[in-house]
Amino acid sequence: MWKKQLFSPGPTPVPERVLLAMAQPLIHHRDPAYEGIFQEVREGLKYVFQTEQDVLVLASSGTGAMEAAVVNTLSSGDGVLVVRGGKFGERWGEICEAYGLRVVPLDVTWGEAVDPMLVERTLEADPSIRAVLVQACETSTGVLHPVKELAEVVRGREGTILVVDAISALGAVDLPMDRWGIDVMVAGSQKALMLPPGLAFVALSEKAWGFVGRSNLPRYYFDLSQERSSQQKNQSHFTPAISLVVGLRESLRMIREEGLQQVFRRHELLARATREAVVAMGLELLAPEAPSPSLTAIKVPQGVDGAGLKRSLEEEFGLVVAGGQGPLKGKIIRIAHMGYFQPADVLQVIAALEVQLKRMGYPIELGKGVRAAQEVFAS
Amino acid sequence: MWKKQLFSPGPTPVPERVLLAMAQPLIHHRDPAYEGIFQEVREGLKYVFQTEQDVLVLASSGTGAMEAAVVNTLSSGDGVLVVRGGKFGERWGEICEAYGLRVVPLDVTWGEAVDPMLVERTLEADPSIRAVLVQACETSTGVLHPVKELAEVVRGREGTILVVDAISALGAVDLPMDRWGIDVMVAGSQKALMLPPGLAFVALSEKAWGFVGRSNLPRYYFDLSQERSSQQKNQSHFTPAISLVVGLRESLRMIREEGLQQVFRRHELLARATREAVVAMGLELLAPEAPSPSLTAIKVPQGVDGAGLKRSLEEEFGLVVAGGQGPLKGKIIRIAHMGYFQPADVLQVIAALEVQLKRMGYPIELGKGVRAAQEVFAS
Repeated sequence: MWKKQLFSPGPTPVPERVLLAMAQPLIHHRDPAYEGIFQEVREGLKYVFQTEQDVLVLASSGTGAMEAAVVNTLSSGDGVLVVRGGKFGERWGEICEAYGLRVVPLDVTWGEAVDPMLVERTLEADPSIRAVLVQACETSTGVLHPVKELAEVVRGREGTILVVDAISALGAVDLPMDRWGIDVMVAGSQKALMLPPGLAFVALSEKAWGFVGRSNLPRYYFDLSQERSSQQKNQSHFTPAISLVVGLRESLRMIREEGLQQVFRRHELLARATREAVVAMGLELLAPEAPSPSLTAIKVPQGVDGAGLKRSLEEEFGLVVAGGQGPLKGKIIRIAHMGYFQPADVLQVIAALEVQLKRMGYPIELGKGVRAAQEVFAS
Repeated sequence: MWKKQLFSPGPTPVPERVLLAMAQPLIHHRDPAYEGIFQEVREGLKYVFQTEQDVLVLASSGTGAMEAAVVNTLSSGDGVLVVRGGKFGERWGEICEAYGLRVVPLDVTWGEAVDPMLVERTLEADPSIRAVLVQACETSTGVLHPVKELAEVVRGREGTILVVDAISALGAVDLPMDRWGIDVMVAGSQKALMLPPGLAFVALSEKAWGFVGRSNLPRYYFDLSQERSSQQKNQSHFTPAISLVVGLRESLRMIREEGLQQVFRRHELLARATREAVVAMGLELLAPEAPSPSLTAIKVPQGVDGAGLKRSLEEEFGLVVAGGQGPLKGKIIRIAHMGYFQPADVLQVIAALEVQLKRMGYPIELGKGVRAAQEVFAS
């Protein structure tokens, strides 16, 4: 009955022109027409990754590209520093452990960003650490980690690379890979790139490609050297997810048309409006100090049932937000504003949230949060 | 300009109703609506796999599921018998070698099927062999390997499993997994399942699940035990390729509506008409003894440029056939008739092939091949 509107931090809404591009009859991946599309996609990805390196396209979810980042650059027994400040930080650790790496965890309170000084001290105490693995945006908390500062810490160390999961950050947050010196950057299709899930991306710096030559972990489907030599010829080593790549051309065109810096400004604006609204409603942000422009995590106030709040927003208004994961289950709701989002979307979700909170007994003056968001857009 | 018609053995044509299903606005993979779709998909896959086991859905190309089959059931140093009668047989070997298995190759002339007696003798000579890996249909040659007979050879051996790549066979060829005793069966979306590439499937017998418990190879993204426990709850361990799963529900409905046995009869009819036409044209089949109903590989006659023939069919008629791979490059063309194909498609491609062969100097009586195909359909 309702028009379902996705406010989940992946999948995110897919623009109509992308959906229609993907609904065209399939073309063959060895057809020159496809190779032309893939060439344009490769250029567009370099633009969004802000890199001169090849951005490799994989047919997998983002986790596949995280695994590819690990198994292509490291060797069994290597020490790795894993920033664990949420579910996806934990995932880095799980992948590394599955491949027999020695995980040095740096645990960060969920909702806080990592302190680059702590990373620096850990690297100084244990110079054998070969990689620092972190999220740009930790999707489970909405925290933006200080990637630029982490890159400064790692850059001078010959034997260490910085591996950044930018799955829910790329295309929402300014992450100039080459300029900052990020060594490995991973992304996925279903976030700010405005596509369905099923594609993942990974780019490596020259330094990281040097690590690939010395890595001894087993890999086949996620062998990035093979992929690179195929993709430099605008092909794929294995059958690509053709329809998603065709859709990606369209969403990358949209990003180019808007301009990457304007895309970032739009995300920052939407995020700020959301945060101001939340504060005006008397609610608490989970990550007030380091909020991501991709999504906003809001603490569910005492006395309100978090799962019920999420469910009722969908049932009463058709708006699909996300709840919390792991220790935050039932304690937060997460509202995404990455990708195909505009100010009216924020006004809508804030207004509906006010109604549901009031219905659930939370003392709120209807319209107060909406007004705070309106003021951000009016200024 | 031309309506491009795919006759390639993957990707294959995607039905309009599947394309339109995938063009619907995206739904969230934790939404009960999606879980209902996924439940229907899981049931439909069991129907097509002819199994009571879970058919696990992965976001990857078919090769990802091949890798999953290996890394979940075997251990480093294990001996494996690999039937190498084409490019995809070689791929089994490459995957096994990448993970440190001891590959015992059984090389078969490209274009011929493996002799089950040779497999039996090899297993008797080396009882340490833990798995026999084979294709049901070897896509690079159009050969159908004798899976039923291979299953009879392997079934009685406690310590050995039969692992079948059915990527270009499932849904085109009768492969009753449970009845025959196939231990691991792998499939992909872009063949007879009539979808774009990007999904892969794998099902394991009880015996194979026993192997999983003893396997020590590293895995994370392709960890089938984790996938099974998630998918039994109609979820996925990682973000699924939502739009492709929604399309899969539609294509599985089409297969159910036609009925699996009728689907097999249709494929057999299309394949027989293609073969009769080829012979009537005076051409040679690459695999006359063991042809697959999925595709027909035709030797390019002496004096005709194989690459030029493939190219001209596309340029002059808009028909996209495949050439040969590896040692067969330029020597064969492959015409697929798996998935969304009907008799008129065969008539069209045969008629166009006749025209191009005549143009390229091959002595042919126009219409002779077409007539042979017509007679198959008329009878």
